[in-house]
Amino acid sequence: MKIIKFPDRRQWNDLIQRPVYNQDKTKEIIAPIIRKVREKGDKALRKFVLEYDHFPLVDLQVSPREIAESGKFISKKLKRAIRQSISNIEKFHKAQWPDDIRINTAKGVTCMRRTLPIENVGLYIPGGTAPLFSTVLMLGIPARIAGCSNIVICTPCDHYGRVNPAILYSASEIGIDTIFKVGGAQAIAAMAFGTESIPRVDKIFGPGNQYVTLAKLLVSQHGVAIDMPAGPSELFILADTSAVPAYIASDLLSQAEHGIDSQVILVSTAEKIIKAVDKEIKKQIGDLPRRHIIEKSLSHSAFIQVKNIEEGIDFMNLYAPEHLIIATRKPDQLASKVKNAGSVFLGHYTPESAGDYSSGTNHTLPTNGYARAHSGVSVESFMKFITFQKITKIGIKSLGKTIEAMAEAEDLLAHKNAVAIRLKNNNK
Amino acid sequence: MKIIKFPDRRQWNDLIQRPVYNQDKTKEIIAPIIRKVREKGDKALRKFVLEYDHFPLVDLQVSPREIAESGKFISKKLKRAIRQSISNIEKFHKAQWPDDIRINTAKGVTCMRRTLPIENVGLYIPGGTAPLFSTVLMLGIPARIAGCSNIVICTPCDHYGRVNPAILYSASEIGIDTIFKVGGAQAIAAMAFGTESIPRVDKIFGPGNQYVTLAKLLVSQHGVAIDMPAGPSELFILADTSAVPAYIASDLLSQAEHGIDSQVILVSTAEKIIKAVDKEIKKQIGDLPRRHIIEKSLSHSAFIQVKNIEEGIDFMNLYAPEHLIIATRKPDQLASKVKNAGSVFLGHYTPESAGDYSSGTNHTLPTNGYARAHSGVSVESFMKFITFQKITKIGIKSLGKTIEAMAEAEDLLAHKNAVAIRLKNNNK
Repeated sequence: MKIIKFPDRRQWNDLIQRPVYNQDKTKEIIAPIIRKVREKGDKALRKFVLEYDHFPLVDLQVSPREIAESGKFISKKLKRAIRQSISNIEKFHKAQWPDDIRINTAKGVTCMRRTLPIENVGLYIPGGTAPLFSTVLMLGIPARIAGCSNIVICTPCDHYGRVNPAILYSASEIGIDTIFKVGGAQAIAAMAFGTESIPRVDKIFGPGNQYVTLAKLLVSQHGVAIDMPAGPSELFILADTSAVPAYIASDLLSQAEHGIDSQVILVSTAEKIIKAVDKEIKKQIGDLPRRHIIEKSLSHSAFIQVKNIEEGIDFMNLYAPEHLIIATRKPDQLASKVKNAGSVFLGHYTPESAGDYSSGTNHTLPTNGYARAHSGVSVESFMKFITFQKITKIGIKSLGKTIEAMAEAEDLLAHKNAVAIRLKNNNK
Repeated sequence: MKIIKFPDRRQWNDLIQRPVYNQDKTKEIIAPIIRKVREKGDKALRKFVLEYDHFPLVDLQVSPREIAESGKFISKKLKRAIRQSISNIEKFHKAQWPDDIRINTAKGVTCMRRTLPIENVGLYIPGGTAPLFSTVLMLGIPARIAGCSNIVICTPCDHYGRVNPAILYSASEIGIDTIFKVGGAQAIAAMAFGTESIPRVDKIFGPGNQYVTLAKLLVSQHGVAIDMPAGPSELFILADTSAVPAYIASDLLSQAEHGIDSQVILVSTAEKIIKAVDKEIKKQIGDLPRRHIIEKSLSHSAFIQVKNIEEGIDFMNLYAPEHLIIATRKPDQLASKVKNAGSVFLGHYTPESAGDYSSGTNHTLPTNGYARAHSGVSVESFMKFITFQKITKIGIKSLGKTIEAMAEAEDLLAHKNAVAIRLKNNNK
């Protein structure tokens, strides 16, 4: 682990840089995939499932029977855990529902804003090294609360044509039963353009590898919306002398196991904490099955010692981390100084994994510094605002001259006429 | 004007298609511009101002004196109009401020969501054929209400190195004084990457021609956020027999004057209304200075006759227009059936130009069918949600087993450990 002591503020811009990938090669691979799905629909999808997932799939859609039977493979303990997580996630996300607005801005002029669900949404759930059924909950629950009419899940099948039962069980627990056994860039293309089996959606959500991520970016240039640009996962920990090195180490390791490109940053005022965390990491890493991944991601991560906690907060706000743990004596005080972050974990008993699964917050969050301008997934991500205005005869009289003057000054005389013609008739 | 009678639902997908542009040529022109601004900063900007705006600019920034003197060129009538519009826009946008959320999702588990301003935002204001000072208000007011720390405007100067005084006056009226005389793709690049004079921003807002639009899309792949993908402006009018043909015609003409690629659609149950509107257009068009633009945009627009108003609403929701006028007997009843639209104008006395300037709603809206998944600009567009969670010792005891069970089922054992190590110490 690289240890950096008291970096100068002029160095900060270099320290916050994330790894940059050359997308050209990825694009070369996925552009033809997207094109083929767009042209040949299900036929192309079956070919890609055979090629990448090694199964000759006939029905792309998961059958009602497969969904109904998924519960058989889930332990009682896990079922209980999924139910408690659903309950917490629902509570927090239901509180996000935005109120409609109705206001008289002037005499006879009423403006309204209604928040309506996006009708058709697609959720991408990665299979791969970890079956992320928690993401089914994190995307599916806000989609259900928002009231989206059609919710579609795409997720890759295994070499026997099966989808992970925890993914199916989680989906059915929250009332989603339209699930397709398609993964990768081909799944994104299918949801963006529609095929015989898979309906076209208005917005695509969900994490994925570099192929899925770039596919989302490419299809977003063809009319479909996406949740957010995505990059490798990140954890930033701010610790003072009250921090428990064993806890900090366990949090850094949990983030590092996501993938070899995950980034973990520890910023502390105390050299003693940094050294103790380093020691604890070496101790805890031994037993972990994903050690090979963790070692790689730790190799491009950093421990940074700062003069005081305020400097640490300033640096953190510049970095704009996806996850931030504030492991200090008075975490609430520092929380009020957070300007840029995805999700924040306060105090010594709030590990990041709580937010990954069960606390109630969403785990789909902006990475790569995007937290400066982007939010994590919320109920609003599955909705859109529509504004309405209604002007009465009296209203257009009081507002008409204003509109006319501005339209005229912008040289848009047809805009002016649309008011003038109404004022004229109105005055008769 | 093309008139289509009772189109079959199977035809609808063709009817909602917007013109598609080949972006390759535009990209060939602007990619080098973006690269040069990124590499050479102000020097490149001065070169482009000379090349495109024909003025040898030294100071890129508008001086305090230029701003202070702008009021001299604005009539009292226009000043009054600007002030009334500011008042209405402020009222409606202040009402959008989202409340913070704080909820106990489980015993000892508190989840919060705070909405914070995006710190650095850039507003692009086109010059060109119409000096859109109204856009200064539509972007600047919500940015100020959101509390963005740094608000920058870029707008092209004329051949004498001057910025339109109405743009300067509007900016100063809402307290924005950081304005640069740079337009086009070079302005977008400057705000995305920063130069010696122009600060790098976190999010870029604002309309523009195809060069500006594509430049926003390109820089959005380098870490800066953008307000929304943009296309040519659109107006969809739904009219029954109660509609006033002269009003409808004036609204269609006002939309058509925006640009040659603007699209206007009139859907009505009544042939008599369609014919009368057609006649009115021919009558009103004669006096309009932008007639040459209007005629071109009308040539790819359509009048559509439908069986009943419900079918009209269904077609409208599929089209997802930027602007929708409901010119019917009971507009509120139909308003509740709107699923996809940017901004909606209810009744016979609510012309679209009211929303363009003064009613209080925002005029930066999703085009090209994006209203299916995107919203117009709001106060929230200048803010982001950050979630927080705090778990107590009791909380981690009640939630710990749930997190452990889910992490284990996802094969993420370091995630499980981060909880286990806290539970272990906690139980001592």
